[in-house]
Amino acid sequence: MKKIINQPEHVVDEMLQGLVFMHGQLVERLDGYDVIVRKAEKRGKVGLISGGGSGHEPSHAGFVGRGMLSAAVCGAVFTSPTPDQILEAIKAADEGAGVFMVIKNYSGDIMNFEMAQELAEMEGIEVASVVVDDDIAVENSLYTQGRRGVAGTILVHKILGHAAETGKSLAEIKELADKLVPQIKTIGLALSGATVPEVGKPGFVLEEDEFEYGVGIHGEPGYKKEKLQPSKELAEELVAKLLQDFEATAGEKYGLLINGLGATPLMEQYVFANDVAQLLESKQIEVVYHKIGNYMTSIDMAGLSLTLIQLEDSSWLEALEATVETPAW
Amino acid sequence: MKKIINQPEHVVDEMLQGLVFMHGQLVERLDGYDVIVRKAEKRGKVGLISGGGSGHEPSHAGFVGRGMLSAAVCGAVFTSPTPDQILEAIKAADEGAGVFMVIKNYSGDIMNFEMAQELAEMEGIEVASVVVDDDIAVENSLYTQGRRGVAGTILVHKILGHAAETGKSLAEIKELADKLVPQIKTIGLALSGATVPEVGKPGFVLEEDEFEYGVGIHGEPGYKKEKLQPSKELAEELVAKLLQDFEATAGEKYGLLINGLGATPLMEQYVFANDVAQLLESKQIEVVYHKIGNYMTSIDMAGLSLTLIQLEDSSWLEALEATVETPAW
Repeated sequence: MKKIINQPEHVVDEMLQGLVFMHGQLVERLDGYDVIVRKAEKRGKVGLISGGGSGHEPSHAGFVGRGMLSAAVCGAVFTSPTPDQILEAIKAADEGAGVFMVIKNYSGDIMNFEMAQELAEMEGIEVASVVVDDDIAVENSLYTQGRRGVAGTILVHKILGHAAETGKSLAEIKELADKLVPQIKTIGLALSGATVPEVGKPGFVLEEDEFEYGVGIHGEPGYKKEKLQPSKELAEELVAKLLQDFEATAGEKYGLLINGLGATPLMEQYVFANDVAQLLESKQIEVVYHKIGNYMTSIDMAGLSLTLIQLEDSSWLEALEATVETPAW
Repeated sequence: MKKIINQPEHVVDEMLQGLVFMHGQLVERLDGYDVIVRKAEKRGKVGLISGGGSGHEPSHAGFVGRGMLSAAVCGAVFTSPTPDQILEAIKAADEGAGVFMVIKNYSGDIMNFEMAQELAEMEGIEVASVVVDDDIAVENSLYTQGRRGVAGTILVHKILGHAAETGKSLAEIKELADKLVPQIKTIGLALSGATVPEVGKPGFVLEEDEFEYGVGIHGEPGYKKEKLQPSKELAEELVAKLLQDFEATAGEKYGLLINGLGATPLMEQYVFANDVAQLLESKQIEVVYHKIGNYMTSIDMAGLSLTLIQLEDSSWLEALEATVETPAW
């Protein structure tokens, strides 16, 4: 394992210290916890939290800040955060108007976030949540019943963050979240596996000329391994799957997120973007919002994911475009 | 070679098309050229351009936009852009107040930018320039007399971009640039070599447990290969070299840039940041500006660089913090 780290068991702690050092104007760490909270003044609005296992940086702590998350809980690498950590995030996010939790669809995450919700409610904090299951690659997976939650989650953070920032109530945010999540779909591919520091070797190994469609962000198996193909063909497969799942028709408006998984350079992401652009244009799908870069990574996995969000509702586009103050949006 | 591309010889063209598709609100491509220009209205200010070989994305095209570069010239991968391309960038950047060129210190770049300057001056455009040579790792290198120009260049873009934006004259920007460049120093390390698409294999190969200090962003040799060490020890070496070169003393103010070289995840960059923080604190160096992420990459090289900029002049800090509208700052 070749990594710029110290002891593997200290990676999350040291990473969070580094994050707070680099972005100390925007965020701070809850004393004694693996929870990053924003420094913005509390103004009686709904708190918004998310989190999960570490290893997906900048998710989720990089999206803490004015206009997005109030707090992010950072579990051990690829491991659900514990209920006590989530409870502290809820308490830190609470401004008196309730706290909304964005949970990626992994069984451990759901169990622990729900347990924390119960504990918070016993302390008088109203809590609601949504489960993001945007990955259309497979039904059920290693750690998931149904579909996995992946890169589309950051669009949920952004749109719900705007709703909280503009003073929407907890009930209104719950209603928005339930409408929003089914309109966000993602599918990815991997060229190599990620190495968890405490494990020391890649979670899976592909042949020199092989890649895999539909791999999860913890290395969960995808749906098809093939010999490496030109970017155009990769884009054809992913775009076709997404449009089919949306039952998309000509003239519809979408937002597009191309997400690098950690080790894939922007050069490749832009080449892929060009292929996606041509395919969507040929289908007369109008792209009204664009975002590209490493947002929901899988440590040092090579590969990328493609997310589409249906944007018929112009207020969602406005929410995506709103200015925020976070380390990584 | 495992990459998400189509034909290797089309990578730059397709990447630029992808970039314009993803960031079309901010930038456009000069018809028939590998030049990215900002869409902002011309307002009679000094134009600021940069560029070089491709493969360093988001540098430099990602820094085109209001408040930073007027245009970026994108050569073939790791290859200086040709004078005719640079000339078009100068002409596109010209708003009537002259054009300033930020050139990284590579012999080919300097020759071609200077040739373009002569051509532009024959067309009546006043041109000035600065050569950035921030990499303290080695004196002279494969393609360089003196020191190489690397990640610190983006800080030059930012501070000079602010000067241009606020209406400084070409002479004032030249004076500022000449003061600024000696106050920016960088040093890096690599865990793996970069693969140029048209070459198809890494420019250099390190052993499984080996890394190299001071490698250049085109894979130029560094100054020392060693067995991989904990991040703390890597940070000690790089921080010591930089502080020595600055002849830094306790109480001085610096800005800090930690730059991933392409394949190194944020997890490792933050762990490294934490080690740098502790070292600088122990030396009583005050860090007043922080930036972290992949800004001056070497395609898919694993590794990172550390840049310090002396910020005794508070106007430089203000320039670094000013809001800009670019794809990647």
